[in-house]
Amino acid sequence: MKNPSAAVLIIGNEILSGRTLDINTQTIARTLEKIGVTIKEARTVPDEKQAIIESVLALSQKYNYVFTTGGIGPTHDDITSLAISEAFSVPYVLSETIYNLLEQFYQSRGEKMNKVREKMAFIPEGSTFIKNEVSKVPGFAINNVYCLAGVPDIMESMLNSIIPFLEHGKVVRSTSHTVMIGESKIAERFEALQNKYPSVDMGSYPFTREGIHGTSLVLRSSDYVNLEAAFLDLKNLIKE
Amino acid sequence: MKNPSAAVLIIGNEILSGRTLDINTQTIARTLEKIGVTIKEARTVPDEKQAIIESVLALSQKYNYVFTTGGIGPTHDDITSLAISEAFSVPYVLSETIYNLLEQFYQSRGEKMNKVREKMAFIPEGSTFIKNEVSKVPGFAINNVYCLAGVPDIMESMLNSIIPFLEHGKVVRSTSHTVMIGESKIAERFEALQNKYPSVDMGSYPFTREGIHGTSLVLRSSDYVNLEAAFLDLKNLIKE
Repeated sequence: MKNPSAAVLIIGNEILSGRTLDINTQTIARTLEKIGVTIKEARTVPDEKQAIIESVLALSQKYNYVFTTGGIGPTHDDITSLAISEAFSVPYVLSETIYNLLEQFYQSRGEKMNKVREKMAFIPEGSTFIKNEVSKVPGFAINNVYCLAGVPDIMESMLNSIIPFLEHGKVVRSTSHTVMIGESKIAERFEALQNKYPSVDMGSYPFTREGIHGTSLVLRSSDYVNLEAAFLDLKNLIKE
Repeated sequence: MKNPSAAVLIIGNEILSGRTLDINTQTIARTLEKIGVTIKEARTVPDEKQAIIESVLALSQKYNYVFTTGGIGPTHDDITSLAISEAFSVPYVLSETIYNLLEQFYQSRGEKMNKVREKMAFIPEGSTFIKNEVSKVPGFAINNVYCLAGVPDIMESMLNSIIPFLEHGKVVRSTSHTVMIGESKIAERFEALQNKYPSVDMGSYPFTREGIHGTSLVLRSSDYVNLEAAFLDLKNLIKE
């Protein structure tokens, strides 16, 4: 049985302009890896409705899960909720539950709701909420799409809260063998090993340390018996 | 006149598994920003031929330029060159120029060519080469697609070498105003400012510092007159 597949959709001009380095994709990948969900694609699009709609539809049709980050705040460039509503042709509606939650939260700080805070209570009709322990404004899920905040610690907290509700696959384990030998001296043997163990995914990552070429050979699989056998073979096959 | 558009295509299982943090997208974005080329989309796909072909074709049709990173080394998981050949239906051929370059390079180190080193001389027929000052193996360009190495310093060196050959747009400048006020308190005024200056792209990025909510308000535009006017307005409009 194949592991569930997933895609990440990063929404935000600040990533595409280079102002902000995206670290959410890596956090999502590492978190999903632990439950055997495999990320097959990641995309970053600007804060533009049509771009969000097209990507969400393409990715949600292709993969079991889609995780979006960003664009769920109160400002004019936060349009994820509206775009997702249009993507799935459902009304963009005020959630009384979220409204009350926000009202309570602001009251507790001696503040009131206003037009832009109210905006954060609008979601695609029929969504379920994703709890936000950090700053209250929830994310939401509709169909197989989970919309999370863009701020990394909030994103992570939301992601952790939905993990129990996702289908889990067989966890992919990985091992690696690092040698101070250039890739081109070991590629032939490494390919032979890959051919011997087709159920193990093998990647080769070159680096340079103080002018010396090195290579990290990474083995990943949910077939633990062959993973271990391949790793033993690898260490015998490629020695410094 | 609109600035040239571009997409980034990151090729590599190691990014999707979370093993490696992608920093190439940010480097490409920051470099292209300086010549007025706007990144409209970024994608990450695994080392799978069909996924690379589909993304390259989609992105090269949609944007003026596509920059790929990764998958041009000697190992079995390096399939960018083959995939691009198939994407554009051109033969995957041995370049004598690259072969000779590599042969000389290895000879200078007292080493010889072998089957896997030879693999790095295969490119889509009709490509031009992209110089690699760091580790010799060149990248290549075909149609509007530029295929660069995945190792960040090599990628950057290749990218810099092709900058003079790209169409330059009007440089987008950015200014930012950071206040220790939560987003929801300023969103309404910020939206009014956006409506007043449609040629300026305005983004709002919340953060928390020692428990206090703050917001960075970022203005970006190649319309420098309105950018400056908007920035002056912003500082008067939103004060701490």
